[in-house]
Amino acid sequence: MSETITVRGFLGGEVEDFTTPQGLPISNFRLGCTPRRYDRRSERWVNGDTNWYTVSAFRQLAQNVKSSLSKGDPVVVTGRLRVRQWENDKGQRGTSVEIDAESVGYDLTFGTGSFTRLGTSQV
Amino acid sequence: MSETITVRGFLGGEVEDFTTPQGLPISNFRLGCTPRRYDRRSERWVNGDTNWYTVSAFRQLAQNVKSSLSKGDPVVVTGRLRVRQWENDKGQRGTSVEIDAESVGYDLTFGTGSFTRLGTSQV
Amino acid sequence: MSETITVRGFLGGEVEDFTTPQGLPISNFRLGCTPRRYDRRSERWVNGDTNWYTVSAFRQLAQNVKSSLSKGDPVVVTGRLRVRQWENDKGQRGTSVEIDAESVGYDLTFGTGSFTRLGTSQV
Amino acid sequence: MSETITVRGFLGGEVEDFTTPQGLPISNFRLGCTPRRYDRRSERWVNGDTNWYTVSAFRQLAQNVKSSLSKGDPVVVTGRLRVRQWENDKGQRGTSVEIDAESVGYDLTFGTGSFTRLGTSQV
Repeated sequence: MSETITVRGFLGGEVEDFTTPQGLPISNFRLGCTPRRYDRRSERWVNGDTNWYTVSAFRQLAQNVKSSLSKGDPVVVTGRLRVRQWENDKGQRGTSVEIDAESVGYDLTFGTGSFTRLGTSQV
Repeated sequence: MSETITVRGFLGGEVEDFTTPQGLPISNFRLGCTPRRYDRRSERWVNGDTNWYTVSAFRQLAQNVKSSLSKGDPVVVTGRLRVRQWENDKGQRGTSVEIDAESVGYDLTFGTGSFTRLGTSQV
Repeated sequence: MSETITVRGFLGGEVEDFTTPQGLPISNFRLGCTPRRYDRRSERWVNGDTNWYTVSAFRQLAQNVKSSLSKGDPVVVTGRLRVRQWENDKGQRGTSVEIDAESVGYDLTFGTGSFTRLGTSQV
Repeated sequence: MSETITVRGFLGGEVEDFTTPQGLPISNFRLGCTPRRYDRRSERWVNGDTNWYTVSAFRQLAQNVKSSLSKGDPVVVTGRLRVRQWENDKGQRGTSVEIDAESVGYDLTFGTGSFTRLGTSQV
Protein backbone atom coordinates (compact mmCIF):
# COMPACT_ATOMS: atom_id res chain seq x y z
CA MET A 1 0.00 0.00 0.00
CA SER A 2 1.20 3.45 -0.83
CA GLU A 3 0.38 6.24 1.53
CA THR A 4 -2.00 8.43 -0.46
CA ILE A 5 -2.63 11.85 1.00
CA THR A 6 -4.67 14.87 -0.01
CA VAL A 7 -3.58 18.30 1.17
CA ARG A 8 -4.84 21.83 0.65
CA GLY A 9 -2.52 24.77 0.95
CA PHE A 10 -0.67 27.64 -0.68
CA LEU A 11 2.44 27.68 -2.84
CA GLY A 12 5.35 28.98 -0.75
CA GLY A 13 7.40 29.90 -3.82
CA GLU A 14 7.51 29.69 -7.59
CA VAL A 15 7.43 26.36 -9.45
CA GLU A 16 10.88 25.04 -10.37
CA ASP A 17 11.10 22.78 -13.37
CA PHE A 18 13.75 20.72 -15.08
CA THR A 19 14.10 17.74 -17.40
CA THR A 20 15.99 14.59 -16.53
CA PRO A 21 18.71 13.29 -18.87
CA GLN A 22 16.16 10.64 -19.89
CA GLY A 23 13.79 13.40 -21.02
CA LEU A 24 11.31 13.25 -18.12
CA PRO A 25 9.83 16.68 -17.24
CA ILE A 26 9.62 17.31 -13.46
CA SER A 27 8.21 20.29 -11.55
CA ASN A 28 8.64 20.99 -7.85
CA PHE A 29 7.06 23.49 -5.48
CA ARG A 30 6.84 24.07 -1.75
CA LEU A 31 3.38 23.82 -0.26
CA GLY A 32 2.31 25.13 3.14
CA CYS A 33 -0.82 23.64 4.73
CA THR A 34 -2.35 25.10 7.86
CA PRO A 35 -4.93 22.80 9.45
CA ARG A 36 -7.95 24.20 11.26
CA ARG A 37 -8.74 22.49 14.54
CA TYR A 38 -11.39 22.91 17.20
CA ASP A 39 -9.91 24.16 20.45
CA ARG A 40 -11.84 22.76 23.39
CA ARG A 41 -10.54 25.31 25.84
CA SER A 42 -11.46 28.43 23.89
CA GLU A 43 -14.40 26.65 22.24
CA ARG A 44 -13.61 27.92 18.78
CA TRP A 45 -11.75 26.93 15.61
CA VAL A 46 -8.12 27.99 15.48
CA ASN A 47 -5.18 27.59 13.09
CA GLY A 48 -2.87 24.66 13.85
CA ASP A 49 0.82 24.64 12.95
CA THR A 50 1.67 24.74 9.25
CA ASN A 51 2.89 21.52 7.58
CA TRP A 52 5.39 22.08 4.73
CA TYR A 53 5.74 19.66 1.83
CA THR A 54 7.80 19.48 -1.34
CA VAL A 55 5.42 18.53 -4.15
CA SER A 56 6.75 16.87 -7.31
CA ALA A 57 4.84 16.52 -10.57
CA PHE A 58 5.91 14.49 -13.58
CA ARG A 59 5.37 14.41 -17.34
CA GLN A 60 2.34 16.36 -18.63
CA LEU A 61 1.24 17.33 -15.13
CA ALA A 62 4.71 18.82 -14.53
CA GLN A 63 4.41 21.04 -17.60
CA ASN A 64 0.85 22.15 -16.82
CA VAL A 65 1.76 22.94 -13.21
CA LYS A 66 4.70 25.05 -14.38
CA SER A 67 2.59 27.09 -16.81
CA SER A 68 -0.44 27.45 -14.50
CA LEU A 69 0.73 28.03 -10.91
CA SER A 70 2.52 30.88 -9.13
CA LYS A 71 3.67 31.67 -5.61
CA GLY A 72 0.72 32.17 -3.28
CA ASP A 73 -1.82 30.22 -5.34
CA PRO A 74 -4.20 28.05 -3.31
CA VAL A 75 -4.18 24.44 -4.49
CA VAL A 76 -5.46 20.98 -3.66
CA VAL A 77 -2.93 18.18 -4.20
CA THR A 78 -3.43 14.43 -4.03
CA GLY A 79 -0.55 11.99 -4.30
CA ARG A 80 1.81 9.61 -2.58
CA LEU A 81 3.66 10.65 0.55
CA ARG A 82 7.39 9.95 0.79
CA VAL A 83 9.36 10.43 3.99
CA ARG A 84 13.08 10.33 3.37
CA GLN A 85 16.15 10.37 5.60
CA TRP A 86 19.05 12.06 3.82
CA GLU A 87 22.71 12.71 4.52
CA ASN A 88 24.78 15.13 2.49
CA ASP A 89 28.50 15.00 1.75
CA LYS A 90 29.20 17.18 4.81
CA GLY A 91 27.72 14.51 7.05
CA GLN A 92 24.56 16.48 7.78
CA ARG A 93 21.40 14.47 8.14
CA GLY A 94 17.77 15.35 7.87
CA THR A 95 14.30 14.30 6.89
CA SER A 96 12.42 15.42 3.79
CA VAL A 97 8.69 15.11 3.30
CA GLU A 98 7.61 14.90 -0.30
CA ILE A 99 4.41 14.27 -2.22
CA ASP A 100 4.55 12.69 -5.67
CA ALA A 101 1.47 14.34 -7.13
CA GLU A 102 -1.19 12.36 -8.96
CA SER A 103 -3.28 15.48 -9.40
CA VAL A 104 -2.99 19.21 -8.68
CA GLY A 105 -5.74 21.80 -9.02
CA TYR A 106 -6.55 25.38 -7.99
CA ASP A 107 -8.62 25.33 -4.81
CA LEU A 108 -11.87 26.96 -5.99
CA THR A 109 -12.73 27.80 -2.38
CA PHE A 110 -10.62 30.90 -2.86
CA GLY A 111 -11.48 32.12 -6.34
CA THR A 112 -12.62 31.38 -9.86
CA GLY A 113 -10.71 29.86 -12.73
CA SER A 114 -10.65 29.02 -16.38
CA PHE A 115 -9.27 25.92 -18.03
CA THR A 116 -7.82 24.94 -21.40
CA ARG A 117 -7.80 21.26 -22.14
CA LEU A 118 -4.72 19.85 -23.85
CA GLY A 119 -4.52 16.93 -26.23
CA THR A 120 -5.75 13.53 -25.11
CA SER A 121 -3.75 13.01 -21.95
CA GLN A 122 -3.89 9.64 -20.32
CA VAL A 123 -4.03 9.52 -16.54
CA MET B 1 -14.66 10.31 12.23
CA SER B 2 -16.06 11.50 8.94
CA GLU B 3 -15.25 9.53 5.86
CA THR B 4 -13.04 11.86 3.86
CA ILE B 5 -12.48 10.86 0.27
CA THR B 6 -10.59 12.31 -2.68
CA VAL B 7 -11.78 11.52 -6.19
CA ARG B 8 -10.69 12.50 -9.67
CA GLY B 9 -13.10 12.48 -12.54
CA PHE B 10 -15.13 14.38 -15.13
CA LEU B 11 -18.32 16.41 -14.79
CA GLY B 12 -21.17 14.38 -16.25
CA GLY B 13 -23.39 17.46 -16.70
CA GLU B 14 -23.61 21.18 -16.01
CA VAL B 15 -23.47 22.60 -12.48
CA GLU B 16 -26.88 23.23 -10.94
CA ASP B 17 -27.13 25.92 -8.31
CA PHE B 18 -29.76 27.25 -5.97
CA THR B 19 -30.07 29.17 -2.72
CA THR B 20 -31.80 27.84 0.37
CA PRO B 21 -34.55 29.91 2.05
CA GLN B 22 -31.93 30.68 4.72
CA GLY B 23 -29.72 32.22 2.03
CA LEU B 24 -27.15 29.43 1.74
CA PRO B 25 -25.76 29.03 -1.81
CA ILE B 26 -25.45 25.39 -2.92
CA SER B 27 -24.09 23.92 -6.18
CA ASN B 28 -24.41 20.32 -7.32
CA PHE B 29 -22.85 18.35 -10.14
CA ARG B 30 -22.51 14.71 -11.20
CA LEU B 31 -19.00 13.33 -11.24
CA GLY B 32 -17.88 10.16 -13.01
CA CYS B 33 -14.64 8.53 -11.84
CA THR B 34 -13.06 5.65 -13.72
CA PRO B 35 -10.34 3.90 -11.73
CA ARG B 36 -7.32 2.39 -13.43
CA ARG B 37 -6.34 -1.05 -12.18
CA TYR B 38 -3.65 -3.53 -12.98
CA ASP B 39 -5.06 -6.65 -14.60
CA ARG B 40 -2.98 -9.67 -13.65
CA ARG B 41 -4.32 -11.83 -16.44
CA SER B 42 -3.57 -9.48 -19.32
CA GLU B 43 -0.62 -7.96 -17.42
CA ARG B 44 -1.57 -4.38 -18.23
CA TRP B 45 -3.48 -1.43 -16.82
CA VAL B 46 -7.15 -1.30 -17.73
CA ASN B 47 -10.16 0.89 -16.94
CA GLY B 48 -12.33 -0.31 -14.08
CA ASP B 49 -16.05 0.44 -13.80
CA THR B 50 -17.01 4.09 -13.40
CA ASN B 51 -18.16 5.31 -9.97
CA TRP B 52 -20.77 8.09 -10.07
CA TYR B 53 -21.12 10.67 -7.31
CA THR B 54 -23.28 13.70 -6.65
CA VAL B 55 -20.97 16.46 -5.44
CA SER B 56 -22.35 19.34 -3.37
CA ALA B 57 -20.54 22.60 -2.68
CA PHE B 58 -21.64 25.30 -0.24
CA ARG B 59 -21.21 29.06 0.28
CA GLN B 60 -18.31 30.69 -1.59
CA LEU B 61 -17.14 27.37 -3.04
CA ALA B 62 -20.65 26.84 -4.47
CA GLN B 63 -20.53 30.16 -6.30
CA ASN B 64 -17.00 29.66 -7.61
CA VAL B 65 -17.80 26.14 -8.81
CA LYS B 66 -20.85 27.45 -10.66
CA SER B 67 -18.92 30.18 -12.45
CA SER B 68 -15.84 28.05 -13.22
CA LEU B 69 -16.90 24.52 -14.19
CA SER B 70 -18.73 23.04 -17.18
CA LYS B 71 -19.79 19.60 -18.37
CA GLY B 72 -16.78 17.46 -19.25
CA ASP B 73 -14.24 19.37 -17.15
CA PRO B 74 -11.71 17.18 -15.33
CA VAL B 75 -11.63 17.90 -11.60
CA VAL B 76 -10.19 16.71 -8.32
CA VAL B 77 -12.63 16.80 -5.39
CA THR B 78 -11.98 16.20 -1.70
CA GLY B 79 -14.76 16.05 0.86
CA ARG B 80 -16.96 13.95 3.09
CA LEU B 81 -18.74 10.90 1.73
CA ARG B 82 -22.41 10.44 2.53
CA VAL B 83 -24.30 7.23 1.72
CA ARG B 84 -28.03 7.68 2.04
CA GLN B 85 -31.01 5.35 1.85
CA TRP B 86 -34.04 7.17 0.49
CA GLU B 87 -37.72 6.40 -0.12
CA ASN B 88 -39.96 8.63 -2.19
CA ASP B 89 -43.71 9.17 -1.83
CA LYS B 90 -44.37 6.39 -4.38
CA GLY B 91 -42.70 3.89 -2.06
CA GLN B 92 -39.60 3.54 -4.20
CA ARG B 93 -36.34 3.08 -2.37
CA GLY B 94 -32.76 3.64 -3.32
CA THR B 95 -29.28 4.64 -2.28
CA SER B 96 -27.58 7.91 -3.09
CA VAL B 97 -23.84 8.51 -2.85
CA GLU B 98 -22.88 12.11 -2.25
CA ILE B 99 -19.74 14.06 -1.49
CA ASP B 100 -19.94 17.29 0.50
CA ALA B 101 -16.96 19.07 -1.05
CA GLU B 102 -14.30 20.73 1.05
CA SER B 103 -12.35 21.63 -2.07
CA VAL B 104 -12.76 21.37 -5.85
CA GLY B 105 -10.11 22.13 -8.47
CA TYR B 106 -9.41 21.59 -12.17
CA ASP B 107 -7.23 18.52 -12.60
CA LEU B 108 -4.10 20.02 -14.18
CA THR B 109 -3.15 16.56 -15.48
CA PHE B 110 -5.39 17.34 -18.44
CA GLY B 111 -4.71 20.98 -19.26
CA THR B 112 -3.66 24.43 -18.12
CA GLY B 113 -5.62 27.01 -16.19
CA SER B 114 -5.75 30.52 -14.89
CA PHE B 115 -7.08 31.70 -11.56
CA THR B 116 -8.59 34.86 -10.10
CA ARG B 117 -8.47 35.16 -6.36
CA LEU B 118 -11.56 36.56 -4.66
CA GLY B 119 -11.73 38.57 -1.45
CA THR B 120 -10.27 37.09 1.71
CA SER B 121 -12.13 33.82 1.98
CA GLN B 122 -11.71 31.81 5.12
CA VAL B 123 -11.52 28.03 4.78
CA MET C 1 -6.73 6.66 -9.64
CA SER C 2 -8.74 4.39 -7.41
CA GLU C 3 -10.84 5.94 -4.71
CA THR C 4 -9.17 4.82 -1.51
CA ILE C 5 -11.20 5.37 1.63
CA THR C 6 -10.70 4.65 5.31
CA VAL C 7 -13.74 4.12 7.51
CA ARG C 8 -14.30 3.29 11.16
CA GLY C 9 -17.45 1.58 12.32
CA PHE C 10 -19.17 -1.47 13.71
CA LEU C 11 -20.10 -4.79 12.10
CA GLY C 12 -23.86 -4.81 11.52
CA GLY C 13 -23.97 -8.61 11.22
CA GLU C 14 -21.83 -11.73 11.11
CA VAL C 15 -19.17 -12.28 8.45
CA GLU C 16 -20.35 -14.32 5.48
CA ASP C 17 -17.74 -16.28 3.60
CA PHE C 18 -17.59 -18.37 0.45
CA THR C 19 -15.12 -19.60 -2.12
CA THR C 20 -15.37 -18.87 -5.82
CA PRO C 21 -15.29 -21.76 -8.34
CA GLN C 22 -11.71 -20.61 -9.08
CA GLY C 23 -10.81 -21.21 -5.43
CA LEU C 24 -10.67 -17.58 -4.28
CA PRO C 25 -11.80 -17.11 -0.64
CA ILE C 26 -14.08 -14.07 -0.13
CA SER C 27 -15.61 -12.68 3.07
CA ASN C 28 -18.30 -10.00 3.29
CA PHE C 29 -19.74 -7.99 6.14
CA ARG C 30 -21.94 -4.95 6.60
CA LEU C 31 -20.31 -1.97 8.26
CA GLY C 32 -22.12 0.98 9.82
CA CYS C 33 -20.18 4.22 10.27
CA THR C 34 -21.59 7.14 12.22
CA PRO C 35 -19.64 10.35 11.69
CA ARG C 36 -19.28 12.92 14.45
CA ARG C 37 -19.76 16.50 13.34
CA TYR C 38 -19.67 19.87 15.03
CA ASP C 39 -23.10 21.47 15.13
CA ARG C 40 -22.77 25.25 14.91
CA ARG C 41 -26.26 25.89 16.21
CA SER C 42 -26.03 23.85 19.39
CA GLU C 43 -22.25 24.43 19.60
CA ARG C 44 -21.47 20.81 20.38
CA TRP C 45 -20.46 17.57 18.66
CA VAL C 46 -23.35 15.38 17.53
CA ASN C 47 -23.79 12.11 15.65
CA GLY C 48 -24.39 12.47 11.93
CA ASP C 49 -26.36 9.95 9.88
CA THR C 50 -24.90 6.47 9.62
CA ASN C 51 -23.26 5.40 6.35
CA TRP C 52 -23.62 1.70 5.53
CA TYR C 53 -21.08 -0.21 3.44
CA THR C 54 -20.62 -3.76 2.25
CA VAL C 55 -16.99 -4.68 2.89
CA SER C 56 -15.33 -7.47 0.89
CA ALA C 57 -12.06 -9.16 1.78
CA PHE C 58 -10.14 -11.60 -0.42
CA ARG C 59 -7.61 -14.43 -0.03
CA GLN C 60 -5.78 -14.61 3.33
CA LEU C 61 -7.46 -11.46 4.62
CA ALA C 62 -10.86 -13.07 3.90
CA GLN C 63 -10.00 -16.08 6.02
CA ASN C 64 -8.57 -14.04 8.90
CA VAL C 65 -11.57 -11.71 8.91
CA LYS C 66 -13.92 -14.69 9.07
CA SER C 67 -12.13 -16.27 12.03
CA SER C 68 -11.55 -13.02 13.93
CA LEU C 69 -14.61 -10.75 13.62
CA SER C 70 -18.18 -10.95 14.94
CA LYS C 71 -21.30 -8.81 14.84
CA GLY C 72 -20.82 -5.61 16.81
CA ASP C 73 -17.02 -5.53 16.66
CA PRO C 74 -15.50 -2.09 16.12
CA VAL C 75 -13.14 -2.04 13.14
CA VAL C 76 -11.08 0.24 10.95
CA VAL C 77 -11.15 -0.62 7.25
CA THR C 78 -9.10 0.83 4.40
CA GLY C 79 -9.73 -0.08 0.79
CA ARG C 80 -11.15 0.89 -2.58
CA LEU C 81 -14.64 2.31 -2.85
CA ARG C 82 -16.96 0.92 -5.51
CA VAL C 83 -20.33 2.48 -6.33
CA ARG C 84 -22.47 0.20 -8.47
CA GLN C 85 -25.81 0.54 -10.22
CA TRP C 86 -27.60 -2.80 -10.35
CA GLU C 87 -30.79 -4.19 -11.87
CA ASN C 88 -32.21 -7.55 -10.92
CA ASP C 89 -34.28 -9.92 -13.06
CA LYS C 90 -37.49 -8.33 -11.76
CA GLY C 91 -36.46 -5.01 -13.26
CA GLN C 92 -35.67 -3.43 -9.90
CA ARG C 93 -32.75 -1.03 -9.82
CA GLY C 94 -30.55 0.23 -7.07
CA THR C 95 -27.14 1.38 -5.97
CA SER C 96 -24.68 -0.59 -3.88
CA VAL C 97 -21.73 0.89 -2.05
CA GLU C 98 -18.88 -1.51 -1.48
CA ILE C 99 -15.35 -1.38 -0.16
CA ASP C 100 -12.76 -3.86 -1.41
CA ALA C 101 -10.64 -4.07 1.71
CA GLU C 102 -6.87 -3.74 1.62
CA SER C 103 -6.70 -3.99 5.39
CA VAL C 104 -9.10 -4.60 8.29
CA GLY C 105 -8.28 -4.29 11.99
CA TYR C 106 -10.01 -4.07 15.38
CA ASP C 107 -10.36 -0.44 16.38
CA LEU C 108 -8.28 -0.33 19.58
CA THR C 109 -10.10 2.85 20.61
CA PHE C 110 -12.75 0.56 22.04
CA GLY C 111 -10.82 -2.27 23.68
CA THR C 112 -7.73 -4.44 23.82
CA GLY C 113 -6.72 -7.31 21.59
CA SER C 114 -4.31 -10.12 20.99
CA PHE C 115 -2.86 -11.25 17.71
CA THR C 116 -1.48 -14.46 16.20
CA ARG C 117 0.69 -14.03 13.17
CA LEU C 118 0.22 -16.52 10.36
CA GLY C 119 2.81 -17.77 7.87
CA THR C 120 4.70 -15.25 5.80
CA SER C 121 1.89 -13.46 4.05
CA GLN C 122 2.76 -11.00 1.35
CA VAL C 123 0.69 -7.84 1.06
CA MET D 1 -8.58 20.90 6.60
CA SER D 2 -6.40 18.50 8.49
CA GLU D 3 -4.25 16.10 6.56
CA THR D 4 -5.75 12.71 7.32
CA ILE D 5 -3.63 9.76 6.31
CA THR D 6 -3.96 6.00 6.58
CA VAL D 7 -0.82 3.88 6.71
CA ARG D 8 -0.11 0.19 7.04
CA GLY D 9 3.14 -1.03 8.48
CA PHE D 10 5.04 -2.74 11.27
CA LEU D 11 6.05 -1.50 14.71
CA GLY D 12 9.78 -0.76 14.69
CA GLY D 13 10.05 -0.96 18.49
CA GLU D 14 8.03 -1.33 21.67
CA VAL D 15 5.29 1.11 22.64
CA GLU D 16 6.45 3.87 25.01
CA ASP D 17 3.85 5.40 27.28
CA PHE D 18 3.68 8.22 29.75
CA THR D 19 1.17 10.52 31.38
CA THR D 20 1.25 14.29 31.11
CA PRO D 21 1.20 16.42 34.30
CA GLN D 22 -2.43 17.13 33.39
CA GLY D 23 -3.20 13.41 33.56
CA LEU D 24 -3.43 12.72 29.81
CA PRO D 25 -2.20 9.23 28.86
CA ILE D 26 -0.03 9.20 25.69
CA SER D 27 1.57 6.26 23.85
CA ASN D 28 4.14 6.49 21.07
CA PHE D 29 5.60 3.98 18.68
CA ARG D 30 7.72 3.99 15.52
CA LEU D 31 6.01 2.65 12.42
CA GLY D 32 7.75 1.55 9.23
CA CYS D 33 5.69 1.42 6.03
CA THR D 34 7.06 -0.09 2.84
CA PRO D 35 4.93 0.76 -0.20
CA ARG D 36 4.58 -1.68 -3.07
CA ARG D 37 4.85 -0.14 -6.50
CA TYR D 38 4.69 -1.42 -10.05
CA ASP D 39 8.04 -1.18 -11.77
CA ARG D 40 7.53 -0.52 -15.47
CA ARG D 41 11.04 -1.57 -16.41
CA SER D 42 11.02 -5.00 -14.77
CA GLU D 43 7.25 -5.31 -15.23
CA ARG D 44 6.62 -6.55 -11.73
CA TRP D 45 5.70 -5.26 -8.26
CA VAL D 46 8.63 -4.28 -6.06
CA ASN D 47 9.17 -2.80 -2.60
CA GLY D 48 9.60 0.97 -2.51
CA ASP D 49 11.61 2.76 0.17
CA THR D 50 10.29 2.53 3.72
CA ASN D 51 8.57 5.57 5.25
CA TRP D 52 9.07 5.96 9.02
CA TYR D 53 6.53 7.68 11.24
CA THR D 54 6.17 8.39 14.93
CA VAL D 55 2.61 7.50 15.89
CA SER D 56 1.00 9.05 18.98
CA ALA D 57 -2.17 7.83 20.65
CA PHE D 58 -4.07 9.61 23.41
CA ARG D 59 -6.43 8.79 26.28
CA GLN D 60 -8.15 5.38 26.08
CA LEU D 61 -6.56 4.54 22.73
CA ALA D 62 -3.12 5.20 24.29
CA GLN D 63 -3.78 2.68 27.06
CA ASN D 64 -5.20 0.04 24.72
CA VAL D 65 -2.29 0.43 22.29
CA LYS D 66 0.19 -0.01 25.14
CA SER D 67 -1.44 -3.21 26.41
CA SER D 68 -2.08 -4.71 22.95
CA LEU D 69 0.87 -4.00 20.64
CA SER D 70 4.49 -5.17 20.54
CA LYS D 71 7.51 -4.68 18.33
CA GLY D 72 6.98 -6.26 14.92
CA ASP D 73 3.18 -6.26 15.00
CA PRO D 74 1.50 -5.36 11.71
CA VAL D 75 -0.97 -2.49 12.12
CA VAL D 76 -3.21 -0.14 10.21
CA VAL D 77 -3.24 3.45 11.53
CA THR D 78 -5.45 6.36 10.52
CA GLY D 79 -4.92 9.86 11.86
CA ARG D 80 -3.66 13.36 11.28
CA LEU D 81 -0.24 13.96 9.78
CA ARG D 82 2.03 16.53 11.40
CA VAL D 83 5.29 17.67 9.83
CA ARG D 84 7.41 19.62 12.28
CA GLN D 85 10.67 21.53 12.04
CA TRP D 86 12.59 21.33 15.31
CA GLU D 87 15.76 22.80 16.74
CA ASN D 88 17.35 21.50 19.92
CA ASP D 89 19.42 23.44 22.44
CA LYS D 90 22.61 22.45 20.60
CA GLY D 91 21.41 24.30 17.53
CA GLN D 92 20.67 21.13 15.57
CA ARG D 93 17.67 21.25 13.29
CA GLY D 94 15.52 18.55 11.78
CA THR D 95 12.12 17.47 10.63
CA SER D 96 9.84 15.05 12.43
CA VAL D 97 6.92 13.28 10.82
CA GLU D 98 4.19 12.30 13.24
CA ILE D 99 0.71 10.87 13.07
CA ASP D 100 -1.80 11.70 15.79
CA ALA D 101 -3.80 8.47 15.67
CA GLU D 102 -7.57 8.46 15.49
CA SER D 103 -7.60 4.68 15.26
CA VAL D 104 -5.08 1.82 15.42
CA GLY D 105 -5.78 -1.84 14.67
CA TYR D 106 -3.93 -5.08 13.97
CA ASP D 107 -3.69 -5.61 10.22
CA LEU D 108 -5.66 -8.86 9.78
CA THR D 109 -3.93 -9.41 6.44
CA PHE D 110 -1.13 -11.00 8.44
CA GLY D 111 -2.89 -13.04 11.12
CA THR D 112 -5.90 -13.59 13.34
CA GLY D 113 -6.89 -11.80 16.50
CA SER D 114 -9.20 -11.66 19.46
CA PHE D 115 -10.72 -8.59 21.05
CA THR D 116 -12.02 -7.56 24.47
CA ARG D 117 -14.30 -4.58 24.51
CA LEU D 118 -13.83 -2.10 27.32
CA GLY D 119 -16.46 0.09 28.98
CA THR D 120 -18.52 2.41 26.86
CA SER D 121 -15.84 4.44 25.12
CA GLN D 122 -16.93 7.39 23.05
CA VAL D 123 -15.13 8.04 19.78
